[in-house]
Amino acid sequence: MNALGRQLLLELRDCNTETLNDVEYIGNCLRDTAREIGATVVNECFYRFSPHGISGVVIISESHICIHTWPEHNYAAVDVFTCGDSVRPEDAVRPLIEKLGSKNPSLIEVKRGVLQGSRVGCELK
Amino acid sequence: MNALGRQLLLELRDCNTETLNDVEYIGNCLRDTAREIGATVVNECFYRFSPHGISGVVIISESHICIHTWPEHNYAAVDVFTCGDSVRPEDAVRPLIEKLGSKNPSLIEVKRGVLQGSRVGCELK
Repeated sequence: MNALGRQLLLELRDCNTETLNDVEYIGNCLRDTAREIGATVVNECFYRFSPHGISGVVIISESHICIHTWPEHNYAAVDVFTCGDSVRPEDAVRPLIEKLGSKNPSLIEVKRGVLQGSRVGCELK
Repeated sequence: MNALGRQLLLELRDCNTETLNDVEYIGNCLRDTAREIGATVVNECFYRFSPHGISGVVIISESHICIHTWPEHNYAAVDVFTCGDSVRPEDAVRPLIEKLGSKNPSLIEVKRGVLQGSRVGCELK
């Protein structure tokens, strides 16, 4: 089944609480992970909520990595969305788990852009 | 089942091709949709790829709305991620479909941050 993109939805539970409220750390986490998987960051935006919580996105040439953190629950929701064959989203999983100190992670993968009748599409029999 | 967030993954097929390559239009599309569902935009970033395709995100107080467009396939992948009870991600679906002219949309919903043993968590029996 061919798809234009692949998106990993990471549930990062039991994370290091302090890192989840450190916008500089979270920014470095996403940028460094992008670099480590061979992606190219082309834009980014972050926001720190009061009293706690960070939302942030790095747009990469290959789509995006985004995060929302709930320090009060030691939890972060992270998406790694990639297109093309040059980077593999699964390569981002271990770096993200380690950088955020998650002791109870899980993920699901969703294929995006499975288009019938196109050369990239799913060939339904 | 309680969750910290709800994320709608919209597959917008058979869209209006021209709008998918117009970064100003796409920016307005996301910002206007956020406003229409009662969300508050706190940051944003966009990138226009050459020769075609746009990636963009608006961070909202309630999480984010993001898009990746493939004008060459008349396709856009849009996520609407919200937390809390003040906005409903499903309210964004019709505005996004209409603004992008999708004639063949579909979506899945994913609950994020279903945390056991917390007051927001899933009570597993």
